[in-house]
Amino acid sequence: MPRRLAYFGPAGTNTEQACINYDPDAVRLPYTPIAAVADAVASGEADEGVVPIENSLEGSVTDTLDLLVHHSVLFIRHELVLPIKHFLVAARGTSVEAVGVVYSHPQALGQCRGFLASRLPDAEVVASMSTATAVEDMLRRGAEAAAIATRRAAAIYGGVVIAEGIEDDQNNMTRFVVLAATDHPRTGADKTSACFSFDEDAPGVLHRVLAEFGDRGINLAKIESRPTRESLGRYIFLVDLEGHREDEIVREALARVKDQVSTFKIFGSYPKHGTG
Amino acid sequence: MPRRLAYFGPAGTNTEQACINYDPDAVRLPYTPIAAVADAVASGEADEGVVPIENSLEGSVTDTLDLLVHHSVLFIRHELVLPIKHFLVAARGTSVEAVGVVYSHPQALGQCRGFLASRLPDAEVVASMSTATAVEDMLRRGAEAAAIATRRAAAIYGGVVIAEGIEDDQNNMTRFVVLAATDHPRTGADKTSACFSFDEDAPGVLHRVLAEFGDRGINLAKIESRPTRESLGRYIFLVDLEGHREDEIVREALARVKDQVSTFKIFGSYPKHGTG
Repeated sequence: MPRRLAYFGPAGTNTEQACINYDPDAVRLPYTPIAAVADAVASGEADEGVVPIENSLEGSVTDTLDLLVHHSVLFIRHELVLPIKHFLVAARGTSVEAVGVVYSHPQALGQCRGFLASRLPDAEVVASMSTATAVEDMLRRGAEAAAIATRRAAAIYGGVVIAEGIEDDQNNMTRFVVLAATDHPRTGADKTSACFSFDEDAPGVLHRVLAEFGDRGINLAKIESRPTRESLGRYIFLVDLEGHREDEIVREALARVKDQVSTFKIFGSYPKHGTG
Repeated sequence: MPRRLAYFGPAGTNTEQACINYDPDAVRLPYTPIAAVADAVASGEADEGVVPIENSLEGSVTDTLDLLVHHSVLFIRHELVLPIKHFLVAARGTSVEAVGVVYSHPQALGQCRGFLASRLPDAEVVASMSTATAVEDMLRRGAEAAAIATRRAAAIYGGVVIAEGIEDDQNNMTRFVVLAATDHPRTGADKTSACFSFDEDAPGVLHRVLAEFGDRGINLAKIESRPTRESLGRYIFLVDLEGHREDEIVREALARVKDQVSTFKIFGSYPKHGTG
């Protein structure tokens, strides 16, 4: 039976492309908002769920972090990394020069600011709810319109690509996580994600906790502090570290960390991207 | 002469409200995008510039972080914190029950998801470029339309508030920074923001650097790792610490950190919010 893969939809977004790269044979089920993807996996409607967690230009996807910290009983089982390319999509027969209005999500419009200023300085920019709905908005508007979207959205909704690679920054990548009821067994080249917080802002507590990793030679791939939902001045710390939570030294370090913090949650261990 | 205050516009956004709270007598000059605010201050068109840096629900404003890390010769001179309230705005005479379409920035629409589901379950939601342009879009659309925006945008663009406090989460706050040619003199209750990065991912380097602060009793108010522009796997660390860079122990700690990292930049020292 093919895998049932929930993802943050609609169809034609980069998240769907990440799903196709991960398992082209899966049955793909779009959900929105991000929390609904986790609900679908938790209830058994889907086997696994794919959500974006971090973009190299935009930073963390806070809905996904909040889901992991506060709500989800799921684990991270895989990470996926996708280079993000933007395409200018229009109805067949429209040339770039004829474009007078450009639809997209404000974030995508912002990431193509240079292209718009140099090639379409007089075009009006109009916000859409996603890059996929931008293609629908564009088709409704007619011949002078274009959308910034994925190549796949052009194919799904019936547009053609009239310019490609129009993003200002070529190093635009998004990291996705695959959520499931269990995390991944050890492979020998793994990462572990976890979060913790402190009761009080004692100076030195954070670096003593991080020393549990550093002193054992465990590399910290990422650290981020997020305001707690209660106030801007209190933080939850999220870390990605190298190693599996069943590796002896990782298990020992995590146990020592747990003793020194007030809240503690392991999101899961999974193969490092590019090695899995 | 009144202060000339550049800010991330347009008028009627929360950033303008932060400017009004900071200095009601200033001449306010809207710029977009965020980098243009810094350019206006650097060129002398404005004395200071106000940009958002962090929201309690959405996380960091990466355009502002990237500006501080990569481009700006400016310093952080103040921080401002504003509670964010969302208002349902419509043309005079429109009741909440009559609303069939709601305009706003996708982020604001997401933050009012609960209100929209319970009070306007059948309304269409349409994206706008900002909460301020949402009011203009709404007025163009006519009597069945509403916008999610600030109270000030309603006043500026000619709408009335028909529901208030419609955000799902009451703990929605945004922190802004005031950029200027110099940072702020010591007040005795200050914060300092800085960033650094390492040549290689040596385990333990980060916690040794953080120990320079912790061992001296300097509290770390915030830490965040941002992917470098080159790749998702390499990080720049941004820290906010308590104390002024001219305080003896802070100066000493920063000098020791600088010796152990490959890049290092102080964004400035400024009065802690609520004490300045």
